[in-house]
Amino acid sequence: MTQNIYDTPAFFEGYSQLERSHHGLSGAPEWPALRALLPDLQGARVIDLGCGYGWFCRWAAEQGASSVLGLDVSQKMLARAQSSNDAASIRYVRADLEHLELPGASAELVYSSLTLHYIEHLAHLFRQAYQALVPGGWLVFSIEHPIFMAPVEPGWLIAADGRKVWPLDSYQVEGPRVTDWLAKGVIKQHRTVGTLLNLLIGAGFMLKHVEEWGPTDAMIAAQPALAEERERPMLLLVAAQRPR
Amino acid sequence: MTQNIYDTPAFFEGYSQLERSHHGLSGAPEWPALRALLPDLQGARVIDLGCGYGWFCRWAAEQGASSVLGLDVSQKMLARAQSSNDAASIRYVRADLEHLELPGASAELVYSSLTLHYIEHLAHLFRQAYQALVPGGWLVFSIEHPIFMAPVEPGWLIAADGRKVWPLDSYQVEGPRVTDWLAKGVIKQHRTVGTLLNLLIGAGFMLKHVEEWGPTDAMIAAQPALAEERERPMLLLVAAQRPR
Repeated sequence: MTQNIYDTPAFFEGYSQLERSHHGLSGAPEWPALRALLPDLQGARVIDLGCGYGWFCRWAAEQGASSVLGLDVSQKMLARAQSSNDAASIRYVRADLEHLELPGASAELVYSSLTLHYIEHLAHLFRQAYQALVPGGWLVFSIEHPIFMAPVEPGWLIAADGRKVWPLDSYQVEGPRVTDWLAKGVIKQHRTVGTLLNLLIGAGFMLKHVEEWGPTDAMIAAQPALAEERERPMLLLVAAQRPR
Repeated sequence: MTQNIYDTPAFFEGYSQLERSHHGLSGAPEWPALRALLPDLQGARVIDLGCGYGWFCRWAAEQGASSVLGLDVSQKMLARAQSSNDAASIRYVRADLEHLELPGASAELVYSSLTLHYIEHLAHLFRQAYQALVPGGWLVFSIEHPIFMAPVEPGWLIAADGRKVWPLDSYQVEGPRVTDWLAKGVIKQHRTVGTLLNLLIGAGFMLKHVEEWGPTDAMIAAQPALAEERERPMLLLVAAQRPR
């Protein structure tokens, strides 16, 4: 089973303090860019891989999705989703995404926000997503960017001449990365951008958009701390389609 | 017209000293990975964007290509190609890739090795490549990796604790990068990986393989200096297909 770090008290407590936990989708600066990749959800069947607090599930229901399946490994997250972001068309279900089996041709959209970097058996999950989609259906997701995940010491470095740089190393060394983020020993799975995209292509998907998210000028003006996101990409957004 | 740095004496002289200039395709460590992306060339019509010394054109002719069009902006390069790597099926033609017009449906393969990072109007060139290909035809190329190109100071940095890192910054700031490589003031055009791939998708291509090239264990054993290529990707290899 996948590491269920979200159910450890320290992590859950820390997570609940995040901007995106307080304010939902609007608290995530990449949301407008991710939303722009989504198909029309009117009448659509949606699956959310790693639904967390359920913010996206609720939004999808409000957009007219006919059914939304929110999956997460964390019971605490699901309890919060159930209490805060429920709707008649939403079902929240506990699932280990490492070994997920989805019914075939049962969705128009498979969505995932900042979850897939925890997944070790990603080829399996992409194949499951593919067969769960109807022809023409979409897989749209965000994931931590491999450049962000790769380094031995993933933190800003001030060079001798004062430059603030992202100290990239170990990029080609794929595999687990253990970091302390909200709790100790969070395990993420580093893959290169190439490997990630080739897994999608190998599963049968057509790549339709690949975006290394960065803040707009307006976002930086409103929130100057975002400026450093121009130096190196932190998030990767992808839209892929099952061929018609 | 594009910067014709290859015709400046210092650059041409320096270039002629490179391993890949002396030994041709086998002097380029990424060649086996790039070759693996190529379609069968028996009877194929091939266009090489930035053919340089013509090593690839000659190889393509030897693989049975029915015609090979080698394009380059540098007269010195073309003269060398003509004298060293000519064959009955090859035509070497001087062309500015920034404003190239290619005949429609005239090729089964458009190839380019380490040239496209010099191109400012890449959307135009990709559209030209697309319409020059027959349905089912391939665009296969290598390009300097955006992570390699982006930094203000693109050279290894030794951190205070001894780590050797690649000092990434300015990744989201697309546009020209001026470096001194073999000659002063070489202009390259930095784009993110996402922008590059979206330009291909926008031109109509299906992405079939995206590879951030790195050396194999055997390569590093034979040539230990290659080990640092594991720390950050230097080259990006892409195979894209015009839909049938």
